[in-house]
Amino acid sequence: MAKSSEAQHPQKVFGWAAKDTENGDEDVSIKILYCGVCHSDLHSCRNEWGNAHYPLVPGHEIVGTVTKIGSNVKKFKVGDRVGVGVMVGSCKSCEYCKQDLENYCPKHILTYNSIDNDGTRTYGGYADMIVVDQNFVVHFPDGLPSDAGAPLLCAGITVYSPMKYYGMTEPGKHLGIVGLGGLGHVAVRIAKAFGLKVTVISSSPRKESEAINRLGADAFLVSNDAGKMKGAIGTMDFIIDTVSAVHALAPLLSLLKANGKLITLGLPNKPLELPIFPLVLGRKLVGGSDIGGMKETQEMLDFCAKHNITADVEVIRMDEINTAMDRLANLMSSTGL
Amino acid sequence: MAKSSEAQHPQKVFGWAAKDTENGDEDVSIKILYCGVCHSDLHSCRNEWGNAHYPLVPGHEIVGTVTKIGSNVKKFKVGDRVGVGVMVGSCKSCEYCKQDLENYCPKHILTYNSIDNDGTRTYGGYADMIVVDQNFVVHFPDGLPSDAGAPLLCAGITVYSPMKYYGMTEPGKHLGIVGLGGLGHVAVRIAKAFGLKVTVISSSPRKESEAINRLGADAFLVSNDAGKMKGAIGTMDFIIDTVSAVHALAPLLSLLKANGKLITLGLPNKPLELPIFPLVLGRKLVGGSDIGGMKETQEMLDFCAKHNITADVEVIRMDEINTAMDRLANLMSSTGL
Repeated sequence: MAKSSEAQHPQKVFGWAAKDTENGDEDVSIKILYCGVCHSDLHSCRNEWGNAHYPLVPGHEIVGTVTKIGSNVKKFKVGDRVGVGVMVGSCKSCEYCKQDLENYCPKHILTYNSIDNDGTRTYGGYADMIVVDQNFVVHFPDGLPSDAGAPLLCAGITVYSPMKYYGMTEPGKHLGIVGLGGLGHVAVRIAKAFGLKVTVISSSPRKESEAINRLGADAFLVSNDAGKMKGAIGTMDFIIDTVSAVHALAPLLSLLKANGKLITLGLPNKPLELPIFPLVLGRKLVGGSDIGGMKETQEMLDFCAKHNITADVEVIRMDEINTAMDRLANLMSSTGL
Repeated sequence: MAKSSEAQHPQKVFGWAAKDTENGDEDVSIKILYCGVCHSDLHSCRNEWGNAHYPLVPGHEIVGTVTKIGSNVKKFKVGDRVGVGVMVGSCKSCEYCKQDLENYCPKHILTYNSIDNDGTRTYGGYADMIVVDQNFVVHFPDGLPSDAGAPLLCAGITVYSPMKYYGMTEPGKHLGIVGLGGLGHVAVRIAKAFGLKVTVISSSPRKESEAINRLGADAFLVSNDAGKMKGAIGTMDFIIDTVSAVHALAPLLSLLKANGKLITLGLPNKPLELPIFPLVLGRKLVGGSDIGGMKETQEMLDFCAKHNITADVEVIRMDEINTAMDRLANLMSSTGL
């Protein structure tokens, strides 16, 4: 029989969270300084994916300071600034774990609303502290601010990993980025750091200035401007599509050159229509990607620190979270991201 | 004003075809010995893609003997056995042509029902001779029979090219091949020559013996056997899907391991339903591929000659073609290939 939430997490902690049981040999205890608010936190809180277990403590873009380490922890010491992202565990022995792809391990453990190795439920970063296996903790590089750097632990790795995997790192190649939300705006910055030519594709003409002047995109394309879309046919090597709503892939596929790649990162809850002719006749592909492994997450943070890449954030107090969630919900429903 | 068909092709030839105008400096004249019957010939003859121009001479799996060469032709001499596939021309200067990917050149010229550089229409291999630019003629290797080797010029390169491009050449990797028609049966043989583990996926249980005993597949999976399909979930690295009818991708995607690739080669005339969750959560991709470049076509033929790979053929006389086309139409409508 499953233990009650109280029995699983006997130690009292402040506020919005519960920590795991006492430190194991591999565990790192972290005092949380900042935690990003991700769209998936909203989905989870409101049980929009149908798998929420309450009480649910969201948060998987965590930056904090090490307060205690287990006896086998050599990578970190008390006082280190560290990050925790979307995962806190995996099997460590499967073909994916062995390739530093813990994110594709069938037994990977999410930072919250997941079942930990000891059978207890995981609670996330909307909390004052968290205890995490050292293999799922990353060094937070000097120079990267804790607040504006925190979202990189989810949004950053979610766009960085497909850029590496699908070969979007060759300077001068042309990348379209669909949507300018949490993922999209970080994607523009990372893509520019790789030397890509970046076109932001959005249904909101008012985002042009943000895309070009603030984020450094090279061009802006309004997705429902038929004339402009037609003019851009066959011009892009890659597209990163961050839209979660059900939407048409055909117009995006037409923007790609032959051998182009359309990478979807959103999670529409219904299948999308896939025209096969462009895939075959232009050897185009539609692929996805889900966060990244721990080694790559560290690499991404170091890359962002080197290139001064952060997310645009508005810092709120923890007691403002419900208002912030409502604002996020409104924003998302108005933009389709 | 376009010239009449007679004015475009003034020289009389035997039977089912007309040849182009007199040899140019780069042209190779070929006496046709054998020509494969491809499903697309049927589509074209019956104008099922809506783009047929009559009179239409199909045929793009052509094997023959060189009878005459232009003054700049160094690669071939009179008497050589040669092949001509799906293309007879391209722009020779675009980014695709420069990478030996003439098949993705926006101006590539198909072997029949296409407009040649001189403005005349191209006529295919259901004929006694053809004249082709030397850059679109390949050497037909010794040891490869002219009749059973001919279909490799379309079916062979169509399956060989995606195996190379999408990385299906690592021995021991597991490839599912959906459909055992013209493409599928050649795909099994080429995949086995690469050292892959091959499972044929088909809706026809009666094809099991052909798949395993005749073609050398390692396993056979009946696609509408829910129990067997469930048992195969997450076991494949790649799938080559040769089905042209509208069909479900979701069950095929579920057969793939994380990071698996589903490559569609058929051309369904309606979009297919694409579930996004497996793409994102398993970093799977759906891609396509269309024949291959001339350099790779030569490489494929040499590979097939080395590994004794041919297509299964039934040789007919040219005057039996209408009956053969009817039989092909009946076969295709009964198998969904």
